[in-house]
Amino acid sequence: MLNFVTSNRSKFMEVSRILSKHGISVVHADIELVEIQDEDIEKVAVAKAEGAYSVLKQSLIVEDDGLFIRVLRGFPGVYSSYVFRCIGNEGILKLLDGVDDRYAEFVSVIVYRNDIESMVFKGVRRGRIADTIRYGRYAGWGYDPIFIPESEEFSYAEMYNKKDEISHRCIALRAFIEWYKSRYDIR
Amino acid sequence: MLNFVTSNRSKFMEVSRILSKHGISVVHADIELVEIQDEDIEKVAVAKAEGAYSVLKQSLIVEDDGLFIRVLRGFPGVYSSYVFRCIGNEGILKLLDGVDDRYAEFVSVIVYRNDIESMVFKGVRRGRIADTIRYGRYAGWGYDPIFIPESEEFSYAEMYNKKDEISHRCIALRAFIEWYKSRYDIR
Repeated sequence: MLNFVTSNRSKFMEVSRILSKHGISVVHADIELVEIQDEDIEKVAVAKAEGAYSVLKQSLIVEDDGLFIRVLRGFPGVYSSYVFRCIGNEGILKLLDGVDDRYAEFVSVIVYRNDIESMVFKGVRRGRIADTIRYGRYAGWGYDPIFIPESEEFSYAEMYNKKDEISHRCIALRAFIEWYKSRYDIR
Repeated sequence: MLNFVTSNRSKFMEVSRILSKHGISVVHADIELVEIQDEDIEKVAVAKAEGAYSVLKQSLIVEDDGLFIRVLRGFPGVYSSYVFRCIGNEGILKLLDGVDDRYAEFVSVIVYRNDIESMVFKGVRRGRIADTIRYGRYAGWGYDPIFIPESEEFSYAEMYNKKDEISHRCIALRAFIEWYKSRYDIR
């Protein structure tokens, strides 16, 4: 059994949907964890996985992601969810009002941990911050309505199934899936 | 000997200046600590003091402060220094552009820890965010140039010695000093 540790229901739905397409089922472990403050998203995710493993003592994955806006020196970065709750997409757009450089990266880090090993998988999607909040039929959550992936016309929120195929989270998940299936001989 | 644990040289200067006026001398312990992510500034400071004590094994204080802007749901709060490095005072003013409610609180938490006890002291200064960046002769650091304490005309940065007398940090320090001097019989 593989646990996916998160307190974010939307994230669990998205991740379990992608994993199940590849024959991997995950159980939602909604436990409160102490997170560390560090601007390195990998360090934060690894510490979270260690903390979760010390509680659960079962195979698990955690996923952390962050939006890193170049002109804002990587803000909101590892504090993306806190910043979103405080200032929302409106706040990000206000900070970028009149700013030409809208380059941003959405980064996802997945950490797998069981009793014998720990592995880190990273996915990066380059893109830019939209000029307005762009919802689509697929609503989206978090910064989805303001992030437009490179060489795409639409924001994450305006894509229906396509986000599952091209997102930073999907890139990290695919790397995890490939490793996990060969390592544990899952077909 | 009392250690003041901080990686912020300006903060050390400010705190040691106030403490020395009351006959308390502190040593600067510039050690790197793992901070936890939590929106409760007291929890963050207590965890930091515990972490520092486990390394130093000597009497110490840590001080954490944060600017909590009401209309931004407490942002930048416990992440004030990270947010400052990323978006600066310009960013905060941009977020509040056209916003009437400029109420904010500057909060300081001091945690004392030695081999037998731990104490928490909190100082809160109400005020508002200025419309522009207001430096003074006393330059100031961090959010000093945009925070105007309640019933004051000037920003923290525009005050010369007065900040040391009325600041959130000073309120917390005074509570600590009073307790510390009576507890350890210092005259």
